[in-house]
Amino acid sequence: MARPVITLLTDFGHKDPFVGMLKGQILRRCPDAQLVDLTHEIPPHDVRAASFHLEQSVDYFPPETVHLAVVDPGVGTSRRILAVRTNTALLVAPDNGLLTRALVRLGEVLEIVEVPARRTTSATFHGRDIMAPAAAEIAKGRPLWELGPGLEIPMMKLSFEPAILAKQLVQASVLIVDHFGNLTLDLSQAEGETAFTPGSRWSLGGHELSMNRTYGEVARGESLLLWSSHGMLELACREARADTAFGLQAGQRVELTPMAGSRELLE
Amino acid sequence: MARPVITLLTDFGHKDPFVGMLKGQILRRCPDAQLVDLTHEIPPHDVRAASFHLEQSVDYFPPETVHLAVVDPGVGTSRRILAVRTNTALLVAPDNGLLTRALVRLGEVLEIVEVPARRTTSATFHGRDIMAPAAAEIAKGRPLWELGPGLEIPMMKLSFEPAILAKQLVQASVLIVDHFGNLTLDLSQAEGETAFTPGSRWSLGGHELSMNRTYGEVARGESLLLWSSHGMLELACREARADTAFGLQAGQRVELTPMAGSRELLE
Amino acid sequence: MARPVITLLTDFGHKDPFVGMLKGQILRRCPDAQLVDLTHEIPPHDVRAASFHLEQSVDYFPPETVHLAVVDPGVGTSRRILAVRTNTALLVAPDNGLLTRALVRLGEVLEIVEVPARRTTSATFHGRDIMAPAAAEIAKGRPLWELGPGLEIPMMKLSFEPAILAKQLVQASVLIVDHFGNLTLDLSQAEGETAFTPGSRWSLGGHELSMNRTYGEVARGESLLLWSSHGMLELACREARADTAFGLQAGQRVELTPMAGSRELLE
Repeated sequence: MARPVITLLTDFGHKDPFVGMLKGQILRRCPDAQLVDLTHEIPPHDVRAASFHLEQSVDYFPPETVHLAVVDPGVGTSRRILAVRTNTALLVAPDNGLLTRALVRLGEVLEIVEVPARRTTSATFHGRDIMAPAAAEIAKGRPLWELGPGLEIPMMKLSFEPAILAKQLVQASVLIVDHFGNLTLDLSQAEGETAFTPGSRWSLGGHELSMNRTYGEVARGESLLLWSSHGMLELACREARADTAFGLQAGQRVELTPMAGSRELLE
Repeated sequence: MARPVITLLTDFGHKDPFVGMLKGQILRRCPDAQLVDLTHEIPPHDVRAASFHLEQSVDYFPPETVHLAVVDPGVGTSRRILAVRTNTALLVAPDNGLLTRALVRLGEVLEIVEVPARRTTSATFHGRDIMAPAAAEIAKGRPLWELGPGLEIPMMKLSFEPAILAKQLVQASVLIVDHFGNLTLDLSQAEGETAFTPGSRWSLGGHELSMNRTYGEVARGESLLLWSSHGMLELACREARADTAFGLQAGQRVELTPMAGSRELLE
Repeated sequence: MARPVITLLTDFGHKDPFVGMLKGQILRRCPDAQLVDLTHEIPPHDVRAASFHLEQSVDYFPPETVHLAVVDPGVGTSRRILAVRTNTALLVAPDNGLLTRALVRLGEVLEIVEVPARRTTSATFHGRDIMAPAAAEIAKGRPLWELGPGLEIPMMKLSFEPAILAKQLVQASVLIVDHFGNLTLDLSQAEGETAFTPGSRWSLGGHELSMNRTYGEVARGESLLLWSSHGMLELACREARADTAFGLQAGQRVELTPMAGSRELLE
């Protein structure tokens, strides 16, 4: 039988052995687990960024992968811990909206349970004490209903302000800033490809930008728009940082205006 | 048979492929190893931080886990390399005190040997050339006495200045600063819980602090004391950096004074 | 059968889940893979640093290891993707010179094929969409000729300016700056050991330096030369940063002049 895959996504960083502790807790219960780090550099307590990154990752994993996601500013309060089964994946996370986007992507939810605290639980590290053990049990094939009771009150959802595509204006939110300083906007290719045609030109805060297929189509240091590897609208600078160039960060709203000659694309 | 678990803890960082080289050396000898990173961001040459982080991690791993710890400012000098067996774990590290705290936690030491240099050993990278191969051999079940001779001179120990709990004053050392800027003090819950009762109030350099169960009990940006996930006294700020707020760093001594109304807790 | 080893080397950093996506793509096809990170902190788009780090790593892995290396500033252009088999290893990378140094180290190239784009390929993330799947297929034992056609036009090679060893002067390029600020020069021990004898003294931009065996032979903060763990000439400061001390960075040329009394070593 294939080894069960467990992914880990947290805001723990790499300085402390916290991620290692999660893995130890998993391996004590599920020694065959194939452990994969998604990222541990979610900005501290940024549940929205975690929600986006998890959504972007789930499609690339085998069926029955268990995703353990711990960004948990409410640890030690009464917020619940959830285990979820969909058609294609299993998930363990705090009930703070982190799963909002991944569950849209993963389709039908078949089962949700609330994972109760265990006796030896610390007040501050439920990832290690509750969530990692739960993920390991699920990866071993234990049914969710054995872990805890079904939900009575629906899980918490985050709301993401949708992109607006009007004739004279496109508005979208910055979801994340990547390692290279490129900005991923919350506007998918499916939504935007009739407006953002190749070669169309746009204005952003006085800067002029063109829609391209790849970074290589513009000169070094020049800014551009393109469909990111996630299939989202990306605002980038070739071999430079777009966040600095435009003074933008995650959560901010971006306004793009079509330039003369591209305007009809929106009509 | 379960795959042998080998953890790695170093000060190599993530920029160079040094950690990858350790893993290659292990997999050449023990292809089934389940490799787990504890941390590779120990401050360069900080054997004390390494000792603490290893101590904190060992309890979360399965029996017979091999812990390979390489923080080795004395590489190339005559300092020895040790392999140690306790009741519940195996360890490989330079003889510079790194194992001091973990061995207290792991209980009875059953066997210690000195691992000799191998022929192809470089002067500067014993982690790759001696320690990783030794860890792999041990993980495969090779007895320690086959690797090298028993110790004649006792291993080096670090000394950690103990916390002082007096009527009018508590003193403790900062062990580490975590990713979030929280400060872990070298004062365990077992030692301190009669003094640091929930709601007790303390003064630290003119700031007033209360003892809490979780970060969520104080307002954002406010500082607090709590028992860390390690079961140590932690000085934190909710969703902010306590190291910056208090101007403290690892190795410094902290003085906490009980406030009126809490004083009797110490009596 | 031993689990196939796949190493990963990229410039993706640790902030986004891009490396995790590569691993998911691999595990969907090759669930038993033993995945090892070499480094993901190659400076963005620095193919030369990637080439060096890969070269330095390959010797430490078991035969038949698959090395997947993705530093790919030309993604989306017409640059090819290569899969290569040598006597001892397999490699997948863009055709931008990244493999130049590793292939010299790995000896005879037995087979090179061009891996074609797949139907669902994004314009910006060929690592995830083409290279990771190819590496997984190869790790499972699929022959290279099934993946794509043999090369007609030779692969791209990087040129590295060789070190010069003259009587009055040694010149060498800085290959990389490591985590500790030590500088690795492109001058191997085999080339340089008759000139850089232990105790020989050198001048570099007015600073005097001695050739040593280990960091411990000089005082803290003092600069020195030694053979690095890679077997290359290293310019270091004990427990301090040599890059800052000498104002040097990767790609720069260093001139070392033998001091009186050491001069005859070059004659």
